[in-house]
Amino acid sequence: MGQRSEFRNPQSEIKRGKSNAFRPISAAALAEMRAAVSEQYLYTDETTRRDCGHDETEDLLFLPEAVAEPCSAAEISDLVKICYRERIPVTVRGAGTGLAGGALPVAGGLVISMKRFDRILDLDEKNFQVTVEPGVITEHLQNILKEKGLFYPPDPSSRGWSFIGGNVSTNAGGPKALKYGVVKDHVLNLEVVLPNGDVIWTGANTLKNSTGYNLTQLLVGSEGTLGIITKIVLKLQPHPTQTLLMLAPFRSAESACAAVAAIFQAGVTPSGLEFMERNAIDWAVRYVGETPVPIREEDAAHLLIEVDGFHLDGLFADCETITRVLDNYDCGEIFLADNDATKTALWKLRRNVAHAVKHNSVYKEEDTVVPRAELPLLLKKVKEVGARYDFESVCYGHAGDGNLHVNILKGQLDDHTWNVEVPKGIREIFTFVKSKGGTISGEHGIGLVQRPYLDIVFSKTELRLMRQIKRVFDPRGILNPGKVLA
Amino acid sequence: MGQRSEFRNPQSEIKRGKSNAFRPISAAALAEMRAAVSEQYLYTDETTRRDCGHDETEDLLFLPEAVAEPCSAAEISDLVKICYRERIPVTVRGAGTGLAGGALPVAGGLVISMKRFDRILDLDEKNFQVTVEPGVITEHLQNILKEKGLFYPPDPSSRGWSFIGGNVSTNAGGPKALKYGVVKDHVLNLEVVLPNGDVIWTGANTLKNSTGYNLTQLLVGSEGTLGIITKIVLKLQPHPTQTLLMLAPFRSAESACAAVAAIFQAGVTPSGLEFMERNAIDWAVRYVGETPVPIREEDAAHLLIEVDGFHLDGLFADCETITRVLDNYDCGEIFLADNDATKTALWKLRRNVAHAVKHNSVYKEEDTVVPRAELPLLLKKVKEVGARYDFESVCYGHAGDGNLHVNILKGQLDDHTWNVEVPKGIREIFTFVKSKGGTISGEHGIGLVQRPYLDIVFSKTELRLMRQIKRVFDPRGILNPGKVLA
Repeated sequence: MGQRSEFRNPQSEIKRGKSNAFRPISAAALAEMRAAVSEQYLYTDETTRRDCGHDETEDLLFLPEAVAEPCSAAEISDLVKICYRERIPVTVRGAGTGLAGGALPVAGGLVISMKRFDRILDLDEKNFQVTVEPGVITEHLQNILKEKGLFYPPDPSSRGWSFIGGNVSTNAGGPKALKYGVVKDHVLNLEVVLPNGDVIWTGANTLKNSTGYNLTQLLVGSEGTLGIITKIVLKLQPHPTQTLLMLAPFRSAESACAAVAAIFQAGVTPSGLEFMERNAIDWAVRYVGETPVPIREEDAAHLLIEVDGFHLDGLFADCETITRVLDNYDCGEIFLADNDATKTALWKLRRNVAHAVKHNSVYKEEDTVVPRAELPLLLKKVKEVGARYDFESVCYGHAGDGNLHVNILKGQLDDHTWNVEVPKGIREIFTFVKSKGGTISGEHGIGLVQRPYLDIVFSKTELRLMRQIKRVFDPRGILNPGKVLA
Repeated sequence: MGQRSEFRNPQSEIKRGKSNAFRPISAAALAEMRAAVSEQYLYTDETTRRDCGHDETEDLLFLPEAVAEPCSAAEISDLVKICYRERIPVTVRGAGTGLAGGALPVAGGLVISMKRFDRILDLDEKNFQVTVEPGVITEHLQNILKEKGLFYPPDPSSRGWSFIGGNVSTNAGGPKALKYGVVKDHVLNLEVVLPNGDVIWTGANTLKNSTGYNLTQLLVGSEGTLGIITKIVLKLQPHPTQTLLMLAPFRSAESACAAVAAIFQAGVTPSGLEFMERNAIDWAVRYVGETPVPIREEDAAHLLIEVDGFHLDGLFADCETITRVLDNYDCGEIFLADNDATKTALWKLRRNVAHAVKHNSVYKEEDTVVPRAELPLLLKKVKEVGARYDFESVCYGHAGDGNLHVNILKGQLDDHTWNVEVPKGIREIFTFVKSKGGTISGEHGIGLVQRPYLDIVFSKTELRLMRQIKRVFDPRGILNPGKVLA
């Protein structure tokens, strides 16, 4: 990807409308913030501000006025009390791996970086629960748990860098969601600092809870707009001891998609069921520099299929069932990965598709999701719209969930086409998705860049309810302004 | 149980405080309601009002002024518009199997019965989804799905009578929740009529969704206080083809509870793990009139343990692992049910404990839930408090979830002890539960009878957020007043 050249004025008119009436950080407020987190953890230098001004979304950049790195809920409470009083925008930042611009400080103000919240506070092996701070890297947590035989399944492609807090804030998914559910299905309880400085817990550390409204699930996926998550209680399960992984090639991308629902109908629930169209796997192979299995000329798409469990015999039986199903969908010779190195190499290809695309071009990553049997129609629609609007796309994703990532490449498109025409095509795709019972984000969130499309999936009443809920938590609108809701 | 003798005035002062200022149903409003649902589905006779004046909670009775049986969201919209305008309380009623008084029309007004919403609208076998109306009986739905090889796991003991809409409204659980999750984990999308008559959908028909705030999860478990659910989209999975069931006797109730966490730690996730203390199983055997296995004098408690899946060999291996674990917990001879008749008979015992208790005495059913390793301490605490407050209790429940039902018997206690002293003991138990990371309802809801204890588990700020959310959905407070929140 090229350099981030788009420096946008954080004080822009759009972001500081009358209703919000945000104020810049005064010298006095800055001094208070310094006192709250100590001198060394409050930054105003341009390098830090630039570092916290972007995420992985296109090439967008917005500079905050200051960056704080607190290390406790009490420090965050002190910081937001200042911002609440002074009406200073606050944007919480995890590892900055977001794909929808959720962490961009579009209205300037203060960025609160969660990087010092990096502790695993309580690994409760008896109760299969872990309490973590939001700045723990997801894969780091998963590795520690695995050593104890425990499993926290959600594994977004960014898991090697992304913070668990960011995963919670976007309700992330990843390949294992089709069997184990997304992040929301694993969060029991959250400690949250409200914009006025109050600290709450959203639920209880229990597997069942019918006590009052589900504030936990309201916070999960709210993208830092309702409160600042400072502790997370996750439920765990025994780590599967066995996996089998297959790569299945198809002559047509549509047959590959059509096979997906049939696998489930045959009674098998894979732990991973990923779709890659031809150019996705080609780009990944070039980017990674190797492939454990030759990609043949005639193959238009692949499914990467994993089953997991505790009894290998049962998994082999599952693979046989899957093979029988795929025979009906114009599937080529299936490659079975029988050792860890090959499994890792195959997953590496899949996990690097987005990196490979990014390496080649600025792109918009759309995160469409439909009931999985609608995938073939969705793929067809994407290509048809792309042909009309003259954009190239690379499609891949979590087919078992009906979650298709559509990477739209900027390539040689001029800025007008990119900023005005392509969004019209995206709107057509999203309208189609909605008509099939789907929605516009399966796991990335709405953030900044999907906000203009929210009217496609929600009625005015539904949006009104959401705006009023936002106001309940954040009456002055200081938390992550300009995100999710208008 | 004795007759419901407590006729309480629905117009009571408490229920009609200044802030609510509800009005009785005028003759004109009644005529409008009649027009909305047609003459034959609007009732004001005492028999119907009495039928809709109680649920399964203690012996409470509150009469509504009228009962409507609409059959569409449009009819409900028309009804609530009248009530909204006239400030008439509206209580939605499923099958009336609630254990926390959630369906009691404590402020009088209109009861909306959902019994005519009894259609399965769309069984989408390709996408493993079903769209149902809320008045479908849970077990009826499960049976129809099973014929297609599909599985909707949540199975509260009331599943033979309770409506799926009531299950959603209380976020019900049941024995299978420890492996498959509670109702909230299976709801994808809801059609909801708001108190002002607007009709919304809360989400999308997808397995993943990171699009805006999670209104679906806010509605699940909200006990009819935020909106009236008129359609439910549930996710399904392949129905397990094999189950094994074991009854394990223990010399002490505490060893039985202690064994629970150890089973999970050994790497097995049962599909059912139920605890019954001695008197629970005795009462159930007497009530049912038979038992497939003799209950020995020396056994103080039992665990009923089910494993399910698709490969019988793996399940036998799981049972062996469980047996090895239980050997360390003073377990007697384990009975393995090897045929459907015996399995059904064992489950029948477990499912009839509450009926057996109810048959003997008015009782309060507490629905405590803690992280499962805390169960032995909770059980000990319950008995210790009971001894001090002089009440008898029958304890049983979903031990795998840490969800212990504590049935407190009225027996020969006088009304003062029952209404004033016993609640002090309950408060002590709930305070203990909270101190262990637990909460006061795992699957029954707060409704009317648990409301006085909500301050134990939520701070003032947390309660304020919930009250404000209630106001967002129901600004005039007409929906199920007096429930969940004060």
